[in-house]
Amino acid sequence: MRGNLYIVSAPSGSGKTTLLQNLLRTFRDLRFSVSYTTRQPRGGEQNGVDYFFVDRPTFLGMVERGEFLEYAEYYGQLYGTARSFVEQQLEAGKDIILDIDVQGARQVKTKFEDAIAVFSLPPSFVELERRLRSRMLESDEAIRRRLDIAKGEILFYRDYDYIIVNDVLENSILLLESIVRCGSAVASHQKHRIEEIIASFGGTV
Amino acid sequence: MRGNLYIVSAPSGSGKTTLLQNLLRTFRDLRFSVSYTTRQPRGGEQNGVDYFFVDRPTFLGMVERGEFLEYAEYYGQLYGTARSFVEQQLEAGKDIILDIDVQGARQVKTKFEDAIAVFSLPPSFVELERRLRSRMLESDEAIRRRLDIAKGEILFYRDYDYIIVNDVLENSILLLESIVRCGSAVASHQKHRIEEIIASFGGTV
Repeated sequence: MRGNLYIVSAPSGSGKTTLLQNLLRTFRDLRFSVSYTTRQPRGGEQNGVDYFFVDRPTFLGMVERGEFLEYAEYYGQLYGTARSFVEQQLEAGKDIILDIDVQGARQVKTKFEDAIAVFSLPPSFVELERRLRSRMLESDEAIRRRLDIAKGEILFYRDYDYIIVNDVLENSILLLESIVRCGSAVASHQKHRIEEIIASFGGTV
Repeated sequence: MRGNLYIVSAPSGSGKTTLLQNLLRTFRDLRFSVSYTTRQPRGGEQNGVDYFFVDRPTFLGMVERGEFLEYAEYYGQLYGTARSFVEQQLEAGKDIILDIDVQGARQVKTKFEDAIAVFSLPPSFVELERRLRSRMLESDEAIRRRLDIAKGEILFYRDYDYIIVNDVLENSILLLESIVRCGSAVASHQKHRIEEIIASFGGTV
């Protein structure tokens, strides 16, 4: 049986990374697709684990050869998901999760309409601002830019199957786990198994 | 916020009752809609808890007054879901679950397209037959009739959002719980909350 493809998107600062880390600890079989990016590694980030770090000409070469399932420019840097990895894993029956932005999610949804897309939202603008400031990582200017981008991103919520309003972290973790668990029960993903059961009843689909 | 409406259907003998009992123990706020029926109570069944037991003229009067959200005839007996109870609970923001057959599910889905419908299937015909026989409650003839009905019912699987193949009970329990938990994250059910968040960002939907 083919694996399920999950997409998680969220405005920067809404707590997505923590959610994904928890999810991957719970579902050991879930494969995380490591993105390619032209941006520089930040402290502690490892090549091949957090991202594949490549230079711009390399990235653009991959674009030309159609090697990306989706790619997008964000803050002047390119980010992309390798098509071959995703397709191989799904064919092998593995579930995959993509951590991609709203532009990327839309591209993937047009290619894999069965993909299960989750959008994590902060409970309010004020709370998102508070979270970004509490990281104390960035200038006022950078934070304002992130908030502006978030304003645009949340308007894409209609592209998503599920919305997690990330208010109480434990609840959001449980909700994302439930969504992934449900994936294996989505009727349209189980045609093959259901056909077998119907055949065992002596029926035809 | 309006509550979610869940539908669970399954061929007789596939383990639905056990699944529902577990679910209602876990989600104390989930309201179970007690059906009306013209059939006689079986051992231990209580009026108002398992069913509202009414006679045929009473049932048909309710049909004429449009008091049923759905009703169906099954084994020569009538079964129906009271419209008023369901609508009041949903309006009050309560989640409701209906235990109804494939005919009823189709009727409800046409009236509440947001209803989340779950179909529980036995893993195979042989296994369903084994389960029905192991109950030792019924004659061969009655079991054969149940199996024939099941053959027809499983063909309705396309009406459902989720399919639970009830093979290992613990897995099925967890899956049904996840489906109900996910219900609160389904994007199309959260328009109001998302609009509020977008408004807090200074945007309009």
